[in-house]
Amino acid sequence: MRAVVVNGTRDVSVEKVADPVLAGPDGAIVQVTASALCGSDLHFYEGEFPAVGLRPGHEVVGTVVEIGADVGRIAVGDRVLVSPVIGCGRCPGCRAGNPIDCVGGGVRVLGGDVGLPGGHAEAVAVPAADAWLLPVPEDVSADHAVLLTDALPTGWTAATRADITPGATVLVIGLGPVGLYALQAAQVLGAGRILAADRVPERLAMAERLGAEPIDATRGDVAEQVRAATGGLGADAVIEAVGQDATLSAAIASVRSSGTVSVVGVDANFAFPIAVPLLLIRNVTLRFTTAPVAATWPTLIPLIRHGRLIPVDVFTHRMPLSEAAAGYRTFADRTDGCLKVLFDPTR
Amino acid sequence: MRAVVVNGTRDVSVEKVADPVLAGPDGAIVQVTASALCGSDLHFYEGEFPAVGLRPGHEVVGTVVEIGADVGRIAVGDRVLVSPVIGCGRCPGCRAGNPIDCVGGGVRVLGGDVGLPGGHAEAVAVPAADAWLLPVPEDVSADHAVLLTDALPTGWTAATRADITPGATVLVIGLGPVGLYALQAAQVLGAGRILAADRVPERLAMAERLGAEPIDATRGDVAEQVRAATGGLGADAVIEAVGQDATLSAAIASVRSSGTVSVVGVDANFAFPIAVPLLLIRNVTLRFTTAPVAATWPTLIPLIRHGRLIPVDVFTHRMPLSEAAAGYRTFADRTDGCLKVLFDPTR
Amino acid sequence: MRAVVVNGTRDVSVEKVADPVLAGPDGAIVQVTASALCGSDLHFYEGEFPAVGLRPGHEVVGTVVEIGADVGRIAVGDRVLVSPVIGCGRCPGCRAGNPIDCVGGGVRVLGGDVGLPGGHAEAVAVPAADAWLLPVPEDVSADHAVLLTDALPTGWTAATRADITPGATVLVIGLGPVGLYALQAAQVLGAGRILAADRVPERLAMAERLGAEPIDATRGDVAEQVRAATGGLGADAVIEAVGQDATLSAAIASVRSSGTVSVVGVDANFAFPIAVPLLLIRNVTLRFTTAPVAATWPTLIPLIRHGRLIPVDVFTHRMPLSEAAAGYRTFADRTDGCLKVLFDPTR
Amino acid sequence: MRAVVVNGTRDVSVEKVADPVLAGPDGAIVQVTASALCGSDLHFYEGEFPAVGLRPGHEVVGTVVEIGADVGRIAVGDRVLVSPVIGCGRCPGCRAGNPIDCVGGGVRVLGGDVGLPGGHAEAVAVPAADAWLLPVPEDVSADHAVLLTDALPTGWTAATRADITPGATVLVIGLGPVGLYALQAAQVLGAGRILAADRVPERLAMAERLGAEPIDATRGDVAEQVRAATGGLGADAVIEAVGQDATLSAAIASVRSSGTVSVVGVDANFAFPIAVPLLLIRNVTLRFTTAPVAATWPTLIPLIRHGRLIPVDVFTHRMPLSEAAAGYRTFADRTDGCLKVLFDPTR
Repeated sequence: MRAVVVNGTRDVSVEKVADPVLAGPDGAIVQVTASALCGSDLHFYEGEFPAVGLRPGHEVVGTVVEIGADVGRIAVGDRVLVSPVIGCGRCPGCRAGNPIDCVGGGVRVLGGDVGLPGGHAEAVAVPAADAWLLPVPEDVSADHAVLLTDALPTGWTAATRADITPGATVLVIGLGPVGLYALQAAQVLGAGRILAADRVPERLAMAERLGAEPIDATRGDVAEQVRAATGGLGADAVIEAVGQDATLSAAIASVRSSGTVSVVGVDANFAFPIAVPLLLIRNVTLRFTTAPVAATWPTLIPLIRHGRLIPVDVFTHRMPLSEAAAGYRTFADRTDGCLKVLFDPTR
Repeated sequence: MRAVVVNGTRDVSVEKVADPVLAGPDGAIVQVTASALCGSDLHFYEGEFPAVGLRPGHEVVGTVVEIGADVGRIAVGDRVLVSPVIGCGRCPGCRAGNPIDCVGGGVRVLGGDVGLPGGHAEAVAVPAADAWLLPVPEDVSADHAVLLTDALPTGWTAATRADITPGATVLVIGLGPVGLYALQAAQVLGAGRILAADRVPERLAMAERLGAEPIDATRGDVAEQVRAATGGLGADAVIEAVGQDATLSAAIASVRSSGTVSVVGVDANFAFPIAVPLLLIRNVTLRFTTAPVAATWPTLIPLIRHGRLIPVDVFTHRMPLSEAAAGYRTFADRTDGCLKVLFDPTR
Repeated sequence: MRAVVVNGTRDVSVEKVADPVLAGPDGAIVQVTASALCGSDLHFYEGEFPAVGLRPGHEVVGTVVEIGADVGRIAVGDRVLVSPVIGCGRCPGCRAGNPIDCVGGGVRVLGGDVGLPGGHAEAVAVPAADAWLLPVPEDVSADHAVLLTDALPTGWTAATRADITPGATVLVIGLGPVGLYALQAAQVLGAGRILAADRVPERLAMAERLGAEPIDATRGDVAEQVRAATGGLGADAVIEAVGQDATLSAAIASVRSSGTVSVVGVDANFAFPIAVPLLLIRNVTLRFTTAPVAATWPTLIPLIRHGRLIPVDVFTHRMPLSEAAAGYRTFADRTDGCLKVLFDPTR
Repeated sequence: MRAVVVNGTRDVSVEKVADPVLAGPDGAIVQVTASALCGSDLHFYEGEFPAVGLRPGHEVVGTVVEIGADVGRIAVGDRVLVSPVIGCGRCPGCRAGNPIDCVGGGVRVLGGDVGLPGGHAEAVAVPAADAWLLPVPEDVSADHAVLLTDALPTGWTAATRADITPGATVLVIGLGPVGLYALQAAQVLGAGRILAADRVPERLAMAERLGAEPIDATRGDVAEQVRAATGGLGADAVIEAVGQDATLSAAIASVRSSGTVSVVGVDANFAFPIAVPLLLIRNVTLRFTTAPVAATWPTLIPLIRHGRLIPVDVFTHRMPLSEAAAGYRTFADRTDGCLKVLFDPTR
């Protein structure tokens, strides 16, 4: 079959590779019908980690074409969501839908460096299929299905872990796909008022159309703008969805006393400095999150189905898998207004 | 001053009465600018309790015209919300905004049979004013202010006590003002899907405009319709906002296993029969509620201010206090499409 | 093999029956090493339901002797806890450990009238074994293992659903095994003060030894005694573990405003009368519970292992299965100080 | 009157100063009957802040000798607890008992650098007395009263903000008074197992007597010892009660995935480095806390009264206020096994 392979920094190509085989009696093979590019794929693309030979892609939906003998909840022919993180599927953490807490063996990431060959490919092998695949209800669209594998659950979890109470003032920093979905999640959770910060005019305009108050980060310090907008108090809850030192600092500086900063942006800093005395006197919570994707599906699917959550369209670019090299480049360079890229592996 | 007085069954009139006097050094006098009729006023009007001489009215907003020596949070001239229930103001329950839990002396109800002269009048005396009055922010409209004294907090609390999780299916039985506000509250709290039951076509149409799925109670058993709409499961949360044996039975029959029935409708039945074995095997919670009105204000005011909760307009009738007798009659008879009546005590 | 069979009212015997067979590829056969009598078995014994031919027993531990092809978490030779209630094992409710919420097919009760042959026998067949069996850690004693199949989880869940906050005053009505475990659970959950009501001196003495304040129900109205002990307020949380009209009434009459009554006692009344206006004005929650037994294991096992919860010994009678008829009689008549009976099916 | 005054680094003396005067109509004067030394007083004593002339002491109980005209909940003669942090007393944050969230004017700290003259003195003036004084119930001992002004509420809040679920494994780092009370609080909250780390043998022995498993920090890396004790997983919840870089690092390294680190130790580091990628992938919460002292009283007082929480005795040294200079020195040097010092201002 064909699959994207990392050849070096900013160098990927679609190659012929061996077809995937069952990981064991609890595994399944999924023929990929759509898979998307995620900001975290860029860590490999930009050479931040040694990744030559890696096969990326963790936002995957497809059709089950083969199952192991022990698989009971999934059948051949099912259209399925694939969890981007995979655990043993049997321990308490896995049963709760959170492979991060797996105690039954190593956690693995689809298309990750310590993981499993990824889904920018015609097919993937998924272990513990009963736990990490979910048949997609018919009334969930193909686009929404792909978003349910990472971007929506991550935005959602960023919001649920921000301790948002009804009527609260919420600040979202970073209005890429995850930030926009965190913004929409905050609305579902009863936020009274949402401030939305970014540097890109189109993203700020999008946030404003969704009902948020834009904070233009090019016009000055974000925290100062937030305090000016909140009578000096700051935001009750802050969601950081960028992952840079400057934005993480702005997030912490913008939160109100006794408030929560929920971080999903992947800042690669292993020594980010925090001011402990200020955090203590201000009674602040910092929460860092990797979303338990499968655990969010029973909540997000009915919200989407009933129109309570209408995910804003972020797929600015759709292309055959054969054009993956161009897709990665456009996404990495944010050219052509690129917000998110969707691959069609059948082409 | 002038005030409504109950003369007998279905007989009220506006009479000249003594001006109110301060209840003590912690009290205040509020000149009423608007007060509304509530379904529970009808218990007195219809003679269900001996009420001759009673002065009704507990949905009151106005302007402070006099304060006692110990009052510190309220000043003369403040436009204020008045809590319909009054406690000592100093015990833990009162400090949490819930006079029902007052341990500092008898709980009293404005315009209630064991209570204080009510607010269908030109002025009211309010004890413990620091606890039970709140200055109304300038950007809260006069109508919304009146609604914040009872109907909105009661609908809101009905929903908050229904254990609604994001994406849940919620059934609201009874689409008068409290039911409609419970419906809107359920939306703020992240309900995935809302079923709304009533017998009156206009009310069902209103619920549908708000985004709910109407259940026409004239077309057959409500619980059967709910099960048909939910694949046989029932609703995750049910809000009962009518207060009759039939609707309370329907509420209990409609809830899903491990779900919650939140009751705010005042069924006067002191021996309503419940099937204990079925409730046990179905793991059901029944929650009965008198709203802690003042405790809801810090949440509801920002939700209204920022447009997250736009209370549907329920004041079908507005009239001078001098026409109160006609107002009571129209409201009691539900004639002329009457949903709620607002009095202007300055006229 | 041998198994207890119900022949008629107050008439059971140990009979030769067919050996159990696998329920399907997800099933297992468990050789029973110990099983106990529970108060709810008496409904069959006393002829309250037509039960001739029924094979009772739902408090079961044993050793796995056979598994189906799809079973993955359990192996032959495992010493296991058996869940008394069984669901499909695959739907969200079952995955959360609560078969009551199963949507994948009929809920079944081990040894119940609509269910599966019970465990007062040499062996039982358990469907969906991955979900409803749990290997017992080595450091959990044989007695504690049996208690973990029903009495402890039910007492624990009664307490967790009573909304106990640290420092709260909790009333437990009924000091049989479930009530005693609810009492101990309330202690683990931080209750400040526990009142414990019963009519039997030995049980009251046991509760007092555990640190509770005894309320002797033979000395007068329980609710009056509770109010006298709490400055007129009532208990913040009440657990009803008897299941009679009188005790359920006492529970409701004893709860403080805004408090919770948690009911696990099985009152067979399908028309128990409740005073809706009083429940409303007092802001009361009534919660009826069937424990999600398997869901409690990950919490209860470490509490027992680390000595935080040392379950009081309730097995007053231990006997070979061959003497089951005498065991049922003694338990039903509460003679000889009988609190709970444990059978040894190997004899 | 007499009061302790800071003269310079490691130099305090008892001086004659002006008697306190009412802060306004909502203020009160409290004659101090006992006040204690707290670790945070050492910041002034050791010269970490410019503090010449400062009057320290924030752990204070006493008797009300004068009240302002607006004071309603407190009377002359009341034996009272004094909150160490003071807000306006009227805003929502203050009404919830948390002056850190005060929006009604500057937060002030009794005996603090931006604050109010402290309580290592014969008397103190307390503003907003209705909010920040609480009459002590008769059955609360003098020692427990002093502990309720800071050490117990801080230990308690450290535990309540650690997300402890029943049965959880909790690690407490630092076994001074606050750490010991956090340990006891974790027990009240249902911890299954408690690991307790320190370097001082007496403190480790004390923790063991309380039922914890000691981790001797002199024997090697704390986090490694914790992982060894927990099958490699780490602790579900970690409480940091020391306030040094090394202990804060150990706390973060010791927590399990999806766990919480609750920090109350005052590390003065304004640039403590955290490894964001590891916190993200491990789904960790860091919570920094200043205790809302007054908000904990309604919970802690019944727990103490009913013997559910028996605070371990930490007052190793008791002395007249006249000997304060020696008391400070002994406490700062931890000589003579000094854990905590209690002053008697009447002598």
